[in-house]
Amino acid sequence: MIVCKFGGTSMADAAQFHQVKKVIEQDPRRQIIVVSAPGKRFPSDQKVTDLLIQSFYEQSPEASRRVIERFSAIQSQLGLPEELLTDVINELQKRVSSTDGELSERLDAVKAIGEEFSARFFAAFLQSQGVQAVFADPRDIGIVMTSPPERATLHEDSYARLKALNESSVIHIVPGFYGYTVNGKLRTFERGGSDITGSILAAAVGAELYENFTDVDFVYAANPNIIENPIQVEEITFREMRELSYAGFTVIHDEALMPVYRKQIPVAIKNTNNPLAPGTKIVGFRPLTERPVTGLTADQGFSILYVSKYLMNRELGFGRKLLQIIEEEGISYEHTPSGLDDISVIIRSHYLDARKEQRIVNRVLQELGAEVAYFRHGLSMIVLVGEGMQNSTGLAARATAAISATGANIEMINQGSSEVSLVFGVLEEDQVKIVRALYNAFFLPVKVKS
Amino acid sequence: MIVCKFGGTSMADAAQFHQVKKVIEQDPRRQIIVVSAPGKRFPSDQKVTDLLIQSFYEQSPEASRRVIERFSAIQSQLGLPEELLTDVINELQKRVSSTDGELSERLDAVKAIGEEFSARFFAAFLQSQGVQAVFADPRDIGIVMTSPPERATLHEDSYARLKALNESSVIHIVPGFYGYTVNGKLRTFERGGSDITGSILAAAVGAELYENFTDVDFVYAANPNIIENPIQVEEITFREMRELSYAGFTVIHDEALMPVYRKQIPVAIKNTNNPLAPGTKIVGFRPLTERPVTGLTADQGFSILYVSKYLMNRELGFGRKLLQIIEEEGISYEHTPSGLDDISVIIRSHYLDARKEQRIVNRVLQELGAEVAYFRHGLSMIVLVGEGMQNSTGLAARATAAISATGANIEMINQGSSEVSLVFGVLEEDQVKIVRALYNAFFLPVKVKS
Repeated sequence: MIVCKFGGTSMADAAQFHQVKKVIEQDPRRQIIVVSAPGKRFPSDQKVTDLLIQSFYEQSPEASRRVIERFSAIQSQLGLPEELLTDVINELQKRVSSTDGELSERLDAVKAIGEEFSARFFAAFLQSQGVQAVFADPRDIGIVMTSPPERATLHEDSYARLKALNESSVIHIVPGFYGYTVNGKLRTFERGGSDITGSILAAAVGAELYENFTDVDFVYAANPNIIENPIQVEEITFREMRELSYAGFTVIHDEALMPVYRKQIPVAIKNTNNPLAPGTKIVGFRPLTERPVTGLTADQGFSILYVSKYLMNRELGFGRKLLQIIEEEGISYEHTPSGLDDISVIIRSHYLDARKEQRIVNRVLQELGAEVAYFRHGLSMIVLVGEGMQNSTGLAARATAAISATGANIEMINQGSSEVSLVFGVLEEDQVKIVRALYNAFFLPVKVKS
Repeated sequence: MIVCKFGGTSMADAAQFHQVKKVIEQDPRRQIIVVSAPGKRFPSDQKVTDLLIQSFYEQSPEASRRVIERFSAIQSQLGLPEELLTDVINELQKRVSSTDGELSERLDAVKAIGEEFSARFFAAFLQSQGVQAVFADPRDIGIVMTSPPERATLHEDSYARLKALNESSVIHIVPGFYGYTVNGKLRTFERGGSDITGSILAAAVGAELYENFTDVDFVYAANPNIIENPIQVEEITFREMRELSYAGFTVIHDEALMPVYRKQIPVAIKNTNNPLAPGTKIVGFRPLTERPVTGLTADQGFSILYVSKYLMNRELGFGRKLLQIIEEEGISYEHTPSGLDDISVIIRSHYLDARKEQRIVNRVLQELGAEVAYFRHGLSMIVLVGEGMQNSTGLAARATAAISATGANIEMINQGSSEVSLVFGVLEEDQVKIVRALYNAFFLPVKVKS
């Protein structure tokens, strides 16, 4: 059995509904279909979910009207029953004006309308075309959410019940993005949206594959905004995919991958409008190729806290205490390169502001007795990712030679924990030229073993 | 004013006393002279301090007899007054058999006999030769030690009183290694021995130079046991010296350097028996030369704790909690390279044993919810040290190319905190060939700027 998820652009209008039906029919193993709310039809279009949020916060009749228009167009063009549209209008009216429950609950109920009716409409469309399909209400199939004060996420007990979907022979059309608490409250997932619903279902039924249909053919080896026509990645491991997501380089939210990662169910990233293209497959294990590096990603906006103290390395607990000070400011860190008498902490700059920096520097000087402590800003992190890297002697030499040929300085190198990544810290202004140099070094000349 | 310290081999016998006198007379600024206990006269010889420890622990008349023999030889060969030797015999007898005070206090009192009488004999010798010199009792000049339960170290108030030595025109011969608590108890320094006494005095009087006379002409750029005739270092900064000491590559204990480091008083490492050779000078700042790397050191016996967990970098405090677990085992760590979902902790293997490792792995898996946690052993750390490194584009490329040419793999790279070091983790069996390759890359062909 295959679990498929179709994203917002795949569900954007009646023509896309036809295309999704065609994709489903191409493989009879596609039995569980998770759908998003209708997304953008053209770049300046608005997503239905964004219109719903606007309806709620602004109590805007205009935004509500545009939601209804979107569903109305689909209903009329596909010749679906009128009462489906009446349901949208009624539910929207009811949920937007409801005063029952907390603000976040009411917002969740409004936001979920997009997915719910995307699924209801699509199930009705399939039925009208003679396909054995049913709308699968998250409440009925058992997508149980945790209750506040916990962050809204799947209740672990859900898996046992969801497994039953395995035994049905009809196609289930499942709205993504939401479920219900044991008290019957609708809650949306805080992160990962419909991707996570698909991943949960694939894990629950033990699918042979989780196909994530979106609007890209492939995951690229590098950012196409920097590299012209980058190489397309055919197969990638979960951990490679995670490292590439370091810089937001991702077509699928990495928390959404957790359920399938745990069960090592392979994931295919595919294009709804080019479904026969092989796409990119995310797997637990892949054989090594002649190319040690799978991808390359970069992000700017990093700062370094530099701390030094004579004989630091004789002090048990110095590093731990430093990280504790940073943690007490609610700040996550990325890396901590260290010498004998110094340690640096690399932090995303958006966590910092002048007051936080001053507090941290003061505490490090006073509580830890450091001699020097200061922040530097304006750094980029460049990450080389590849399962083949660990076994490739000379890879660091090749990478540093490529960087050095650009004339740029390397501010930081972090290698040795991850078996699949090598991180360079550089000045932001050098980022683009270094990414190009590394891409050329590792992707252009494919070395053929003689 | 110059403060000089003469080590054990410099005070080993009557001939060396003559040589030290000659050295002192070569520069009238040499006004404060710190001496060690008589050391080895030949490789299989025993140091007086070791004999004293044996006398104390084994209550061995044989060891005491050999201590007295050493001083007796010096006394007779230099024609010093008989009563000096009688004092040695009496003090040794009294202190070895004393039952007054705690064990560690009694041991300290015995150990200090070597330095005390080295200084008393040397002062008497200088006087007999018409030199204006006095024995400076640590109690009289004010070397005040902290009292238990604190670790025996200098009481910070000492500096003010010691400063008075500045005003005297006679040469002070100060025994190294010990001082007295405010309650009059003799205590020896736990670390750094006579080196630290010299460093304290140089800092206290604001000396223009602290000369540390020992039995080497120079600090070498690399270990002469691995590299034949390594380059001699003429000038090195305090922080370069510290980084080189990573692998025990040191002629002066780095805690002993703290007092002069704080006041940025330059230190000269010189050979008593070749005093006109320039030696190696340790300074706060030095102009950069065409050679970016000053030295190269390596040490084996490191282990790595590898920990991975999907989405680790989203967890605030993961790294801090990991370091806390290690700290609770009383273990210091060296470096913590990290990827997105993994972190490694590099630890000197002598801190570990099978039980500790098991406890740490269990806690990391259970308390931190890690998916993977294990130790690897048998690693070496190789450190390139140099003030010029930070400004040298391509240095990492040159180093990694040299390593890669040996066919060895690089297990870890740590760069980016220390401005003066670049650390490579490699397999122990590759250490020697990599040290040779790096030495050849950075020291053999001196690049002349065109």
